[in-house]
Amino acid sequence: MWRDLLPLGRHPGTGGYRRYAWTGADAECRAWFATQAELRGLRHEVDRNGNQWAWLGDPADGDAVVTGSHLDSVPDGGAFDGPLGVVSAFAALDELRRRGTSFSRPLGIVNFGDEEGARFGLACVGSRLTAGRLTRAQAHRLTDGDGTPLPRAMEAAGHDPDAIGPDPGRLARIGAFVELHVEQGRALDLSGDRVGIASAIWPHGRWRFDFRGEANHAGTTRLADRRDPMLPYAETVLAARREAELAGAVATFGKIAVEPNGVNAIPSLVRGWLDSRAVDQPGLDAVVAAVEKAAREHAAAHGVELDVVRESRTPVVEFDHALRDELARILGRDRTAPVPVLGTGAGHDAGILSGSIPTAMLFVRNPTGVSHSPAEHADEDDCVAGVLALADVLEGLTGT
Amino acid sequence: MWRDLLPLGRHPGTGGYRRYAWTGADAECRAWFATQAELRGLRHEVDRNGNQWAWLGDPADGDAVVTGSHLDSVPDGGAFDGPLGVVSAFAALDELRRRGTSFSRPLGIVNFGDEEGARFGLACVGSRLTAGRLTRAQAHRLTDGDGTPLPRAMEAAGHDPDAIGPDPGRLARIGAFVELHVEQGRALDLSGDRVGIASAIWPHGRWRFDFRGEANHAGTTRLADRRDPMLPYAETVLAARREAELAGAVATFGKIAVEPNGVNAIPSLVRGWLDSRAVDQPGLDAVVAAVEKAAREHAAAHGVELDVVRESRTPVVEFDHALRDELARILGRDRTAPVPVLGTGAGHDAGILSGSIPTAMLFVRNPTGVSHSPAEHADEDDCVAGVLALADVLEGLTGT
Repeated sequence: MWRDLLPLGRHPGTGGYRRYAWTGADAECRAWFATQAELRGLRHEVDRNGNQWAWLGDPADGDAVVTGSHLDSVPDGGAFDGPLGVVSAFAALDELRRRGTSFSRPLGIVNFGDEEGARFGLACVGSRLTAGRLTRAQAHRLTDGDGTPLPRAMEAAGHDPDAIGPDPGRLARIGAFVELHVEQGRALDLSGDRVGIASAIWPHGRWRFDFRGEANHAGTTRLADRRDPMLPYAETVLAARREAELAGAVATFGKIAVEPNGVNAIPSLVRGWLDSRAVDQPGLDAVVAAVEKAAREHAAAHGVELDVVRESRTPVVEFDHALRDELARILGRDRTAPVPVLGTGAGHDAGILSGSIPTAMLFVRNPTGVSHSPAEHADEDDCVAGVLALADVLEGLTGT
Repeated sequence: MWRDLLPLGRHPGTGGYRRYAWTGADAECRAWFATQAELRGLRHEVDRNGNQWAWLGDPADGDAVVTGSHLDSVPDGGAFDGPLGVVSAFAALDELRRRGTSFSRPLGIVNFGDEEGARFGLACVGSRLTAGRLTRAQAHRLTDGDGTPLPRAMEAAGHDPDAIGPDPGRLARIGAFVELHVEQGRALDLSGDRVGIASAIWPHGRWRFDFRGEANHAGTTRLADRRDPMLPYAETVLAARREAELAGAVATFGKIAVEPNGVNAIPSLVRGWLDSRAVDQPGLDAVVAAVEKAAREHAAAHGVELDVVRESRTPVVEFDHALRDELARILGRDRTAPVPVLGTGAGHDAGILSGSIPTAMLFVRNPTGVSHSPAEHADEDDCVAGVLALADVLEGLTGT
């Protein structure tokens, strides 16, 4: 099953995955999902927002238990982020059938569409639409880097873009959603555990820093006459690292746009994007305020104008405490030490849905912490432990 | 004359000029040049490398005096860099005819093709080819940002790309080349002079700094686990400024390329280009060595690999001393103080040709020092003073 999925959408040069929403690589991954459902005798359906579901039992009975994740990727992403949760869902069902488990609740496996937002710039489009956290009109305004609007891309992939929108009836039939995901950090590696349970997703925001100076000739303009926006940008990059270290948070400048971006031209504009996350909202606010303060001081010192625009803000997501405690109880049965419970800085469909239905996450150990990269990895033994933990959870939640 | 040239190739949004070699805007500028030659009864010719010449007298007589500059621009460049030298050449001829000057030597006005290198990445292509400083094979390998090879672009503009190459016979007939140019700095503004004479072009080089780290998730990767190349890049930008200040040189990071350049991704690669210039070669070498040392230290501290590649190196250009002294004598006749003689950090066709023929430059005051920008400016009174100085020089060199 894993082997069939591995080659799809993989770039031969980088070894990374380029599975972007509504592309050919995405269609191949979706066909793989439908085949896995069919092989297991599950009823396959695609909902109005393009999410794929495979059902054992009738979801109309209500109080369903759903597991799964997503199959799309970031640019040159790894094999595990997303697919591990979907593959583990099917594998956990296989395990439960080996155990002869009988199910008291409908069981669903899901592949959410467009989780990474690699093509249209917004993450978790499939779950956002379903949960009513993104309107049809907003979704219709999304365009990709080539200018293709999301509706045209959906239509080209055989999906009706006018049908998208909130799906409260579908969510009302789900009693619990559990997403398994490769850890995107090293907490489990450091604690020596194969599997952990999510406590919360850190609050998160993105800010655009526009440093505007004066374009000029790099060869002839005296240093004293310059208004070079690259200099306060560089100071701000270093300030962000310092402030994040002091606060135990993370802060990253990973994207930049420079004008005119010529070797012999002092830039007129350096636009940098700050991504920052912290364990709670006051902590995040304090880091960003300190970075902005440093940026303003350095910009003023260089005669550079600065605009700071918040482009997105995601509040802290606390996963359902009852479901989290239930998972801890199920997974702790045969252990002496409790299963570790960890926060995470990454967004997930589970985070989007947690506002609508009881939601939990399982993490599988990542020995390097690397993700969103071809070097992303999880050991096979840990993946098997993840499948067994997910099977235990599903059995505990649905078994009779 | 100036008014006819102003609208050509001007971008309505930025107010800057986009006169790139072998484009429609370039063709309009070239047609303007041919018209100006015709209006004055000068013989217009285009040489094998696409440079335009307008002749009074027969260059075959030898020992010609040539003046002029270029009409192409950097992206969103100003109105003066290049065109001021061509317009002043025609205006100086008009002035000499008003004075009734008769000429003992052939007089030429030139528009060198593709001086800025905005389209194909290499500056001074027209003069380099003519002086044998660029081979036909090298020129044929140049491509623009859309992948169009230089030969195709020349052909589309009606020029034979197979005819390009060195033109020593043409250069042998020129006894002196004087290029008038707007100053790209504030030396004349600070000294209170309208016009100055060039002493030398500073040695100059471009270096590419490739910082290679590890792509990773900006939300989940602990700071301690990161190998973020943006951090040593930022340190290097600041080091370049510091070292240039200490040395009285200039050093600029104005161009950057980041991979994957995603808001939520720690970069795998930050590639920055350093442009540095100093009054002499040892000074330039010292600045770049110090910047590279700082870059290596900061890269190592962040677990980032660094490659530094020198992409170009232009040695110091000393303009012909005899011609320079002759210009100083001519322009100093009616003055109490000597005409200022200044070095410059910018490259010019005059710098390319100075290896082949006696060459000099005149600079016209720039009140802000701004160039390569729509804000580039010279006062009308100073432009008139430039025309009169150029007329004096041409009269002194060619008059009987």
